[in-house]
Amino acid sequence: MSVDSDFRADLEALSRLAAFNIWLGIEITQACWGDVELQLRWRPEFAQYNGYLHASIVGGLIDTACGFAGTTVTKNLLASQFSIRCLRPAIAEVFVVKGKVVKPGSRQIFTSAELYGLGVPEKPFAVGEALLVPMD
Amino acid sequence: MSVDSDFRADLEALSRLAAFNIWLGIEITQACWGDVELQLRWRPEFAQYNGYLHASIVGGLIDTACGFAGTTVTKNLLASQFSIRCLRPAIAEVFVVKGKVVKPGSRQIFTSAELYGLGVPEKPFAVGEALLVPMD
Amino acid sequence: MSVDSDFRADLEALSRLAAFNIWLGIEITQACWGDVELQLRWRPEFAQYNGYLHASIVGGLIDTACGFAGTTVTKNLLASQFSIRCLRPAIAEVFVVKGKVVKPGSRQIFTSAELYGLGVPEKPFAVGEALLVPMD
Amino acid sequence: MSVDSDFRADLEALSRLAAFNIWLGIEITQACWGDVELQLRWRPEFAQYNGYLHASIVGGLIDTACGFAGTTVTKNLLASQFSIRCLRPAIAEVFVVKGKVVKPGSRQIFTSAELYGLGVPEKPFAVGEALLVPMD
Repeated sequence: MSVDSDFRADLEALSRLAAFNIWLGIEITQACWGDVELQLRWRPEFAQYNGYLHASIVGGLIDTACGFAGTTVTKNLLASQFSIRCLRPAIAEVFVVKGKVVKPGSRQIFTSAELYGLGVPEKPFAVGEALLVPMD
Repeated sequence: MSVDSDFRADLEALSRLAAFNIWLGIEITQACWGDVELQLRWRPEFAQYNGYLHASIVGGLIDTACGFAGTTVTKNLLASQFSIRCLRPAIAEVFVVKGKVVKPGSRQIFTSAELYGLGVPEKPFAVGEALLVPMD
Repeated sequence: MSVDSDFRADLEALSRLAAFNIWLGIEITQACWGDVELQLRWRPEFAQYNGYLHASIVGGLIDTACGFAGTTVTKNLLASQFSIRCLRPAIAEVFVVKGKVVKPGSRQIFTSAELYGLGVPEKPFAVGEALLVPMD
Repeated sequence: MSVDSDFRADLEALSRLAAFNIWLGIEITQACWGDVELQLRWRPEFAQYNGYLHASIVGGLIDTACGFAGTTVTKNLLASQFSIRCLRPAIAEVFVVKGKVVKPGSRQIFTSAELYGLGVPEKPFAVGEALLVPMD
């Protein structure tokens, strides 16, 4: 089994512990040291008031991709802050979010992520960052 | 009917257009010009991997309270950016989020919000801001 | 000597170590546990291109007030991130910036600050936050 | 004269209007549509209390690079918000900051920038973003 599969299996086990991730239906499509890709298929209950993907889920996908990327580097992290820039209305059949570690560290891990529609990475819907710290 | 009831009725109508808000079960408990309060009763499907309120919902409640506060001032807004600082693990029977307009404007509206457990406003779980712009 | 004077003396000694603070001419006008107030008198070399206080100095005053507020609680801090919202053009004879600790902690300290003109705290020019971590 | 020289000449004229930029000694080393590079030679008066580049100047260089990148796309902009992540202590003989437009727009322009030491772009000292809006 490849290293990639191990990272993915670990993250899938972690994700299954999060009831909200199960409800969402997040799929982990890639995972290696410091980099992950998640996908989410659109469902109508994800909508905000004019039919785009709700900011909760935009933010949650970016935070989750950041957190999973960080977890490939250090276990048991919590986000102490995250920021989301909403570049375009988020509308797609399948959403892709790529998270990566920008700078690892023992006290804090800087991460970032981009959210886009499957096949259209050059037009991200939203970009963001999370600062992760190891839990006590 | 009081002015407060009118603001609340408008926001409730808006919230019913958002399928995700209906799934969440957000209740609008106060609304006046530039200020809103929302409540959300805990359900197990809101959990992240160690049982706290998921960052999606922490961020979504803050973004929604900011957006609703902005909407009392100007209609048809979209968030162009939001930031969340996670001060403490979010655990409560009933979550309260208070949003307010920090500075209104014709091109952009600065808003902020705080999330805490019912009756414990002095220990916020998370605080954040959103920058709102009128839609085209 | 009051506790306040001790906090102030410590911060003044710290500020004298920072060559840029000396060039700016920051004055520490109040300091207690978790709260500081700084003042800065306008000079023409602080201007950005249309004569307002330059974003460098807006951001630097907010970051410095956050850092000094944090330092009253824990020594030897560095900012890992800071954010500034520019609400209004910053024009004043004397600028005041108030910083406070939002949540202390052993691994990270959440702080925030507001910048306004002397005597006009109700119309802040900018507000912001910094996340501080103890140095290695 | 190349298009690049025209962008640079315009930005140099703009920068000469900002007294603080003149004091800093910012040099515009590259400029094209949506992308700029600035350089700044270290001077001792730029130091914070342990000798690194002061957060004011870290933030100011990132905000200025964002603003200049935005200005190649739309004139007369002001930053409504900026955020800085401080990844490493900023120490160099010559600092380089690259700014770019992430998404242009008529109401707001999303920009980002990276600060590093000359010749070492793979180890950025700080990264950040600014949201720019056209002035009234």
